Amino acid sequence: MYGGSNPYNYLRHQHVKTLDVYKVLGVSLDSILKLVLEEVTPKPEEKKALERAVSDIIRKLLDVRDKHGWSYDVMHLGSTARDTWLSGSRDIDIFLAFPLSEDERTLEEVGVKAGIEVSEGRYELLYSSHPYVRIEHMGFEIDIVPCYKVSNASQLRSAVDRTQLHQRYLKEKLTPRLCGEIRLMKAFAKGIGVYGAETKTRGFSGYLLELLVLYYGSFLEAVRAASRWKPPIIIDIERYYTPREAREVFDAPIIVVDPVDRRRNAAAAVGRQALSAFIAASSVFLAKPSILFFKPPQRRLPNEVSEHIAVVVFKLPKAPPDVQWSQLEKACSKIRAYMEEHGAQILGSGFWTDEVDTGALAFKLASWQIPEARVHYGPFVWQREASMKFIERHLGREDTAEGPFIQDFRWVVVKKRESDVLKVLKRLLSDSSTMKSIGVPSRIAGSIEEGYKLFTEKNILELKGTRLEAFLTKVIDRTPQYVRWGRRDLNPRPPALH
Amino acid sequence: MYGGSNPYNYLRHQHVKTLDVYKVLGVSLDSILKLVLEEVTPKPEEKKALERAVSDIIRKLLDVRDKHGWSYDVMHLGSTARDTWLSGSRDIDIFLAFPLSEDERTLEEVGVKAGIEVSEGRYELLYSSHPYVRIEHMGFEIDIVPCYKVSNASQLRSAVDRTQLHQRYLKEKLTPRLCGEIRLMKAFAKGIGVYGAETKTRGFSGYLLELLVLYYGSFLEAVRAASRWKPPIIIDIERYYTPREAREVFDAPIIVVDPVDRRRNAAAAVGRQALSAFIAASSVFLAKPSILFFKPPQRRLPNEVSEHIAVVVFKLPKAPPDVQWSQLEKACSKIRAYMEEHGAQILGSGFWTDEVDTGALAFKLASWQIPEARVHYGPFVWQREASMKFIERHLGREDTAEGPFIQDFRWVVVKKRESDVLKVLKRLLSDSSTMKSIGVPSRIAGSIEEGYKLFTEKNILELKGTRLEAFLTKVIDRTPQYVRWGRRDLNPRPPALH
Repeated sequence: MYGGSNPYNYLRHQHVKTLDVYKVLGVSLDSILKLVLEEVTPKPEEKKALERAVSDIIRKLLDVRDKHGWSYDVMHLGSTARDTWLSGSRDIDIFLAFPLSEDERTLEEVGVKAGIEVSEGRYELLYSSHPYVRIEHMGFEIDIVPCYKVSNASQLRSAVDRTQLHQRYLKEKLTPRLCGEIRLMKAFAKGIGVYGAETKTRGFSGYLLELLVLYYGSFLEAVRAASRWKPPIIIDIERYYTPREAREVFDAPIIVVDPVDRRRNAAAAVGRQALSAFIAASSVFLAKPSILFFKPPQRRLPNEVSEHIAVVVFKLPKAPPDVQWSQLEKACSKIRAYMEEHGAQILGSGFWTDEVDTGALAFKLASWQIPEARVHYGPFVWQREASMKFIERHLGREDTAEGPFIQDFRWVVVKKRESDVLKVLKRLLSDSSTMKSIGVPSRIAGSIEEGYKLFTEKNILELKGTRLEAFLTKVIDRTPQYVRWGRRDLNPRPPALH
Repeated sequence: MYGGSNPYNYLRHQHVKTLDVYKVLGVSLDSILKLVLEEVTPKPEEKKALERAVSDIIRKLLDVRDKHGWSYDVMHLGSTARDTWLSGSRDIDIFLAFPLSEDERTLEEVGVKAGIEVSEGRYELLYSSHPYVRIEHMGFEIDIVPCYKVSNASQLRSAVDRTQLHQRYLKEKLTPRLCGEIRLMKAFAKGIGVYGAETKTRGFSGYLLELLVLYYGSFLEAVRAASRWKPPIIIDIERYYTPREAREVFDAPIIVVDPVDRRRNAAAAVGRQALSAFIAASSVFLAKPSILFFKPPQRRLPNEVSEHIAVVVFKLPKAPPDVQWSQLEKACSKIRAYMEEHGAQILGSGFWTDEVDTGALAFKLASWQIPEARVHYGPFVWQREASMKFIERHLGREDTAEGPFIQDFRWVVVKKRESDVLKVLKRLLSDSSTMKSIGVPSRIAGSIEEGYKLFTEKNILELKGTRLEAFLTKVIDRTPQYVRWGRRDLNPRPPALH
């Protein structure tokens, strides 16, 4: 798609991966950003195709409105509308803005009907604060979302209504240069894996990244600032609050007061992990800039896995992606806690879904074997009745390995337990009622009990080449890729080609 | 030695061990105490032999004094002097009391010379606050200890001087009945393993037990009180302090103000373990009295050891027993801490010496294998310089299993380590400089490096029948024996013979 004159393509072809070589070739940080910008800015053909699709769908939506006598305005919102979208993106947001006098049921019904009517039969019904319709149209994926038409935050009835305010606010401030800086910022966030506010990522929304660039003035200044961030971070473009007030209103590690709605933290969805990654990656990027931050190579499973790992793959009940991700997250943390209670030392865990019908939970263990003895503390020796009961409960029992004996004024007993963690896990997974009792969401518990496939280091390479591969690489090795790209600069060596 | 008319002997012969049977036979708590008292009270022949030995040694010491023109008084002190010794005991304390005008060097020289001169050539030179002489004489082991003759605490020059004050104080208070009660108390403390103030036991001295009986009035009342003790326990017979003052002056879990010296806690040597055992055993004894509390059966190694256990046996450098025990204690705790730092989960540890030339350290482990992965926490992501250093130190290194990665705002790395605890232990034991650096006393470190024998569960039964056996039984199973004797009463069943 891009010409051979682009040195990035040339170097990528040569498997050249770090800035050392760019430096040798005379490629500076500025050049990197220029190259990336060229890559991520939609080409004229791409823009034209988008514009055609947008005007076509708007026309259709106005036609069905007029045909049925409906009362909405059609608005093109989001990054495609403000020219901050990344080349290759195919997502278009079209909002049907109803007058505030319209009742909510009509809004929902009409919104869905209109979406379906322009879809040529292929549509998906989704749900955010209202139901909305997703269709494929002229090569783009178009969300048709009903909302109320509002002019300020006091009129907001639901989260989707706010989108038009964001649009108006940004349209006023953005310049073509800033749009480019935003594209760099989005590409950077995407490259380091923190782009997206969904449960899946708990990262930075497109709007939040736009605000950061607006606030700091450019991609590079935003990254410089982020490399110095220390939570709690407070950004309040419209100066609605003092920092102390902001901290009191919003309890979060990063607070970005929404300029169109002072009651909202635009960074509320940002989790500790994404925030940490953003700070760390900014730091490393400045120390050792590389194109790889924007275009990370795909990760592959190694040829051999020596880590102790258990991956449970099962049929996931149908649900909206955010529900799927958050239920998986809960299942993962509950099962992990259960294994830890049974003595397992868990180094890490993760969860994944294709957002359709497959779910996966992964656990990385320090060892499959745990000591079969577990120390259990009882009452103090001066608690006479409790001591007698403790002795009676444990002395000479089948599962008592030693004791009761006295240690530091207390009765203590050593109990036997299952030393094979895999057995503990399998027993749990075969029993949905135990899973439910420890807090695993019941739909997931039931689904796992019905059947799951278990992969350990012995057979996990069977998953090479499947959709799970990228996820598994991150479970096996959580080292952020940007740490490796940045490495040479941390330990300077004479460039090989100098 | 004791007649067949003693039902205790009869029952012992029949391997009858608990009071259930005494109850069936009509043997009450009173009868038990009567039987025990009969056992522990020295027989007339025994007393006569003791008196003969004492008057003989006193005569000899006076003879050498007069011969040389020395200036001491000879005093017979301790339990044999106040008739509170246990039948079978062979220890006699003879003090040579010098006038306060005597200078210390003369006192030491004369004391030692006199002891050697009456010893018929077989003596041992020992050291408490002064040097003293231990001799064998007419079947008894006699300590000949030089001290100053004092009449009250203000004149005390050393701990041994206090003994004559104890003697005077107790002689005034004791009656034949109380002497019997003290014998019961000593036998009880001995039976449950807390008799003796030495480092080896950190338990109750004979004098302390005498004070407890004096204070509570009888063995049984003392045990009843002890069963209700909760630290800090304060006993101040002469009422020198208010309880609050006593707690301020003495920082200890049990405070028994010495009636002859208000500055001294007569229970200062009592450790948490012995105190706990005394409280717990008193409780169980009252719930289920048994002769076994006074005459515990000898413990034997089992026929099979499945516990994970390491016993290091080595030549112990010559030193006074208290020094040997406390150096072993230190070595044991330091080596234990070292293994724990290396990931071992240690369920218990112990140390032993024959007080001559053999030392032993024992460790009981939950497992010989530990996970080869260890999580190591680094700086927070906003600590930029430290983060870069951390990444540089760990990324791609031989002993890095995973990471660095980010968890909860921090850099984390998983490091590899030795997973075989036995290897960790052996490496340590072969290297006295490492042992010294972690705080193992240097004489012990050097001695172990020169050579040791290691026993694990695989070969520990080779030690059956050796002097280490009783010690090892307690390492393998720390359950106090009195808990087992008391058990039936905690879980009442119909008596089998009723």
